[in-house]
Parts: sequence; structure tokens; C-alpha cells
Amino acid sequence: MARKVAFVGGGVIGLASAWRMASRGWGVTVIDPTPGRGASWVAAGMIAPLGEAEHSETAITRLRIAGAGWWPDFAADLVRTTGMDIGYSMTGSIMVAVDSSDQLVVEDLASLHHDLGYAVKHLSASACRALVPSLSPGIRGGVELPDDHHVDNRRLVEALIESCTNVSVSFVRDRVARVVFGHDGAVRGAFLGSGELVDADVVVMTAGAECGAIGGVPVEASPDVRPVMGQVLRLRPTPGSPDVARTIRGVVHGRPCYIVPRADGSVVVGATSEERGFETTVRAGAVHGLLDDARTLVPGIDEFELAECSVGLRPASPDNGPIVGWTGAPGLAVATGHYRNGILLTPITAHAVECLLTGDPLPDALLPFDFFRPGAARGRARSRSDVARTGA
Amino acid sequence: MARKVAFVGGGVIGLASAWRMASRGWGVTVIDPTPGRGASWVAAGMIAPLGEAEHSETAITRLRIAGAGWWPDFAADLVRTTGMDIGYSMTGSIMVAVDSSDQLVVEDLASLHHDLGYAVKHLSASACRALVPSLSPGIRGGVELPDDHHVDNRRLVEALIESCTNVSVSFVRDRVARVVFGHDGAVRGAFLGSGELVDADVVVMTAGAECGAIGGVPVEASPDVRPVMGQVLRLRPTPGSPDVARTIRGVVHGRPCYIVPRADGSVVVGATSEERGFETTVRAGAVHGLLDDARTLVPGIDEFELAECSVGLRPASPDNGPIVGWTGAPGLAVATGHYRNGILLTPITAHAVECLLTGDPLPDALLPFDFFRPGAARGRARSRSDVARTGA
Repeated sequence: MARKVAFVGGGVIGLASAWRMASRGWGVTVIDPTPGRGASWVAAGMIAPLGEAEHSETAITRLRIAGAGWWPDFAADLVRTTGMDIGYSMTGSIMVAVDSSDQLVVEDLASLHHDLGYAVKHLSASACRALVPSLSPGIRGGVELPDDHHVDNRRLVEALIESCTNVSVSFVRDRVARVVFGHDGAVRGAFLGSGELVDADVVVMTAGAECGAIGGVPVEASPDVRPVMGQVLRLRPTPGSPDVARTIRGVVHGRPCYIVPRADGSVVVGATSEERGFETTVRAGAVHGLLDDARTLVPGIDEFELAECSVGLRPASPDNGPIVGWTGAPGLAVATGHYRNGILLTPITAHAVECLLTGDPLPDALLPFDFFRPGAARGRARSRSDVARTGA
Repeated sequence: MARKVAFVGGGVIGLASAWRMASRGWGVTVIDPTPGRGASWVAAGMIAPLGEAEHSETAITRLRIAGAGWWPDFAADLVRTTGMDIGYSMTGSIMVAVDSSDQLVVEDLASLHHDLGYAVKHLSASACRALVPSLSPGIRGGVELPDDHHVDNRRLVEALIESCTNVSVSFVRDRVARVVFGHDGAVRGAFLGSGELVDADVVVMTAGAECGAIGGVPVEASPDVRPVMGQVLRLRPTPGSPDVARTIRGVVHGRPCYIVPRADGSVVVGATSEERGFETTVRAGAVHGLLDDARTLVPGIDEFELAECSVGLRPASPDNGPIVGWTGAPGLAVATGHYRNGILLTPITAHAVECLLTGDPLPDALLPFDFFRPGAARGRARSRSDVARTGA
């Protein structure tokens, strides 16, 4: 009989993993009251191997690079199996500086791109504006990053739901009341809010920032993740608004601001990072700050329609790296903590979950991000030797 | 048999007039697809006898002063007959300046208040902050204007609908296809979008900015009004947001910005004035500008929830004064063109409509604002002598 896995949480990580496992012949259930409508829905969809905060090569840098490398095949697979357009674009991005200290940040990141073998082209202010005419004359200069990609995160979510449906993933639109363990200590499934039991040999916690507080999970098997609020704006074009032809990554008086275009001429402007717990209220100050930075980069932002202000709660671990692996509780795995890199790391994480469940070795780049590294668990982590084989 | 009047448009002007006429025993119909949901719903509800643009005593100043004088009794009447709280507040406002040139604007307006007999109290920057502690330390100073009032415009709309219902006004939730005239040239009623006819001896055009294009109305009986877009924000309090105890009228580097409090701790921030025709798209630049000015006045604005961005189309005439009177087409009257003063002028306008229809003399302050003054009609205005008696 096919083995059964239940994913607690149907964001991009849960959905992509569910698709992979069902494609392998597993019986797969995704439990989520509103699949794809959490942080995945709010994201901007940048797929950049190097983020603003990178100053040197770290484990997270290596993971981002590996994660970006998985994207072209993953996108092609998803488009082929669903026939849906996910707005995957490989046009690259332009990173621009507003003041002289911003320019140092841009140059640092450009050097790191170069050192790691990525193409990077330095651009004068006028060359920036030749590439993206809607940029402000006040821009000091920038670099072109041809290896940055982006995807329409909302189309991605819809395509993942479709791809899951195509391979018979069942969706249960409910909350998990608690994960259930048998007398032998191994996972048996999950009780829903409705009282119903979803049978499973393996449960994977893919509920993002809520992974740290899933009912029935012992504290030593709970990942230490907290929500980091990200406020994001969606702007729709009007007859007077300019074309934003490619992703703009700005450093605006020290603050990162990105403007990611969509096929219909809309743009997504992001994002704040705020520690406010599980709050999801759109704040006037955040909207002001995002608009202020975006119009400093592209003055024509003023003419767009402010179509949506939204808040996502990104799951962050103490070291800001993801947590992907078995938890020590037999049959209970976790994939969360992707913080600002959830979309970027979706393909590699789905592959890693597939490896975990089938007993294959995980991609090297994810090895530093298991559950047993210091700080990843809420309770005291066991030593690695205690948990050599925890795959139910 | 009772005479019948149909109001084309159920904003505050149409509703208040309908209430008055039905109280006089007329048969009253209000025709509006969504009564009270136009510019009346977007307004902030300030009731200030003197606006920012007033430099000397003009016909409009005299009208504003007269209009403000009608408010206390009108509010008391409405509250008494409906039992509803309309959030009418007589706490006054504070007008503050951000830079030295703003201070000249404030001082000018303070002098005019004084000259016209209104109380005005000059305040140092620290006195401003003693009165409204949430004001920015960057404020240069201001004046207290105890005769400014405000009303919760949305509660006002709800109470007017209730008061109309109480006196048997019929609401027809449809558009007017065309006003119908008999062989004698006198109004007979209005055909609706549905094809149905609403019988009436008198039709009053109270459709705000749409009054200039009502079907069936000859051009020489059409008021020359255009829509002036006003973008407005509604902010809800959060645990971290400050109390805004009274209306703040700011002059922020030359731009007027007001912050009007509501009983529940919310605030309304307004407003832009933009000539964009009948467009109602919320623009990113307008939201940015309003937030920028509001947080310059009250830094704690940042902590409010951005609950709503909305657009109202205020009806403006060529001289920015209202147009209230008979049109020359027998039985067809008009009350529109209230521009930024619709809420302020609701009681006096409703009274004026009552006077028009019952043959009583209009309030003196409204006499300069009839339909036959130069520029008020789209077509060529007739001379006054031609139209001595046009009341059907």
C-alpha cells in the first residue's frame, strides 16, 4: 500500500512538496484552511541568488545560489504539467543606488556577484536610465544583474494547486487541532478542527510562521520560528503610469526597496521587515515608507493605482536560515524558516522533502539547515546520534 | 392632492432636501442607485465657517458663515427625530503651521476670523502641543478655532436616510434615464433606467457632479458643474497609535491637510483636489502625499491602520460657488456645485430647496448663487426677467 504523508500548511513549500510526493506515488493530503493565501500570496516573487544583506559567502549564500539554480527546471516542469503561465521571467534586474553610501552597498554586492561567478555590469546613472527609462534622474548609478529572475507568486500558487490536483493530492480546508502519535511514539496523522482524523505515516510541518505552535507536537520537536511582518504594495497601471520593464532593486538611503513588474503592467513594491508577532494590520507608516522609497526610484509610481496593501508573516529562525529535516519525533518532519527566501527556495526545498521521505541524501546546500543545529528547535535539541533514523 | 417632487441624486443635499419636503407633506421620491454613497460618503465632515483659501470677505465666505450657523439646529433636529448619534462635535479645531510661510497663511486666516467676529486664540508651538499632544515637535505654532465643528459624514448619511424613511420618502434605487417634460414644457417626472416612470410635479437635480449630464435636460437648463477628485484616507487606531483629540487643520509647506477625528479613535485625512474628470482610481501619489503631510503634523500617524483609501467627485461650478435655484425649465430646479462645502452647506441648502418649492424667499446668503448668474448654466443663460416664475 502506498505510504501516506500529510502536509500541515499549503503555502508554496507545502504545495511544491506535496506535488513531488504525489508524483512519487505517495498518498498526499494538504491541510490548510486557505491554501496558498499566507505569506506565499503576499510575496513579490524575486528569485535573486544574492540578497541585499550578503557581504561574504556564507551557508545561506550557498543555499540561495543552489536554490536559484533549481528554478529554471522547476518552472519548466510546472508550466509543462499544468499548461499555466506562471510569469517566470529571466530578464534580470537592475540594482540602483540613491546616495553615495547606497552606492557603496551596491558596489559591495556587485563585487560579491563577480567573485561568485555571476555576470554583473556596472552602469552609470544615464546607462541605468537607458535600460529603465522610468528611473529617477536622481539615481546615482547601479549594476545590471542578468542572473536575477522573478516569478508571479500568485500564478505560482495557482499552478502548484493545479499540479497537486492533477496528481490526486487531497486538499483538506481546515486547521490541524493536533498531530497524533501512536503508542510506539510514531506519527499516526492529524486531528482536524472538525474532529476528523487524517491518517498519515509521515506529517510534514509546512505552516510557515505557525510551525512553532502546532497542537500535539512536543516542544523538542517544534521549530523555533517567529513571524516577521512584511508589508507589500500592489500597484496597477493607469493611462498615465510608466512602464517598469524589469525588476528594480533599490538601495534608498540605506533601505532596500524592490519594484517587481508583472506581465499586465502592475508592479509589486516591497517590503518591510517588522517584528510585531502575529499581527497583520497594514500600517500607514509602512505604506508611506514603501511609497516614499518607490517614488524616489521611479517618480512615475505616483500615477499608478494603489490596488492593494497586504501583510505577510514570513517565518524566521534564530539564525534566519530555513529549517528542513526530521524533527526527532518519528515520522514528523519540518520545512519552514525560509524568511525572505520562500519563493526562491521552493524548488530546492520540495526536492529536499522528497529526499527526506524517500531516504535519499539531501542537497549539500541544505545540510547546514537541519532541525538539530543549535537554536532550530524550541526545546533542547537532542544530539545528532540519538536521532540517526527518525523517518518513521 | 399632495404635490410630488423627485430628487435626482441622494447624497446629503438630496437627502436633507427630501426630508424637509416630506416633512412639509409633499410626496417625495429620491432616485439614486446607491443613496449616500457618492462624495457624501467620502467627505471628512469638517464644518468650518472659514476655509483655507479665504483671504477676504466674499459671497462664498458669507455663505459658509451662514451655512455653519444652520448646523446646530439641523443636527439637533436630525438626532431628535432619528434617535441616532451623528458624531456632531463642537470641540473646535486647531490650525497649525509647519514652516514660516505656512505661518503667514495661518495668521492671515486668524485675522479674517477675528475681523468677522469669530473667536481665535493664538498658540505658541508648545501651547499647540499642550492642546493636542500628538502634534509634531516640528510644528511652528498655530491658532485655536473654537467655532469649527465636525460631523461623522457617514453617520450623517445614515441618519438622513432614516429621517427620510420616517417621513415616507420613497427610495428608487436606479438611475434616471431622462427627465420628462409635458407638451406645455413643464416637468412631468423622470424615466428610470428600468423604463419605469416616476411621476413628479417638480424635479430637483441633486446628483452632484453628474448634474451637468442628466438625460432629457435641455442644455440651457443644465448646470455647468465638473467633478473635482478628492482623495481621502481613513485610518483606524491600533494599540500603538496616538489619540487625535480634535480636528487638526494643517498648512504643510503650502498644502492644506486636515485630520478629523471620529468617536472610535479613527481619523479621516484629506484631501486632494484634482481635475481628472469622472475618474475614481486611488492614486499612489495621492496616498503618499496625504500620508506625508499627515505624519508631518502628527508623527504617530505611522502607527494607525490604513483602513481605506477613497475617492469622491465633488461638484464644482466655474466660480466654485454652489448653484441652487430654478433652472428656467418649468418645474426643474437644481442644487449642486457645493465643491468642498457639501456637508457644511447641507442644512442651508435643504432649507433653500424648501423655500424654492414652497415659494418662500431664499436665505440672503444663497441669493448670489442662483442658476442665472453668469457661467452657472451650460447653455446661454436667459435674462432674469424671462424666468420670473418657473416653479411649474
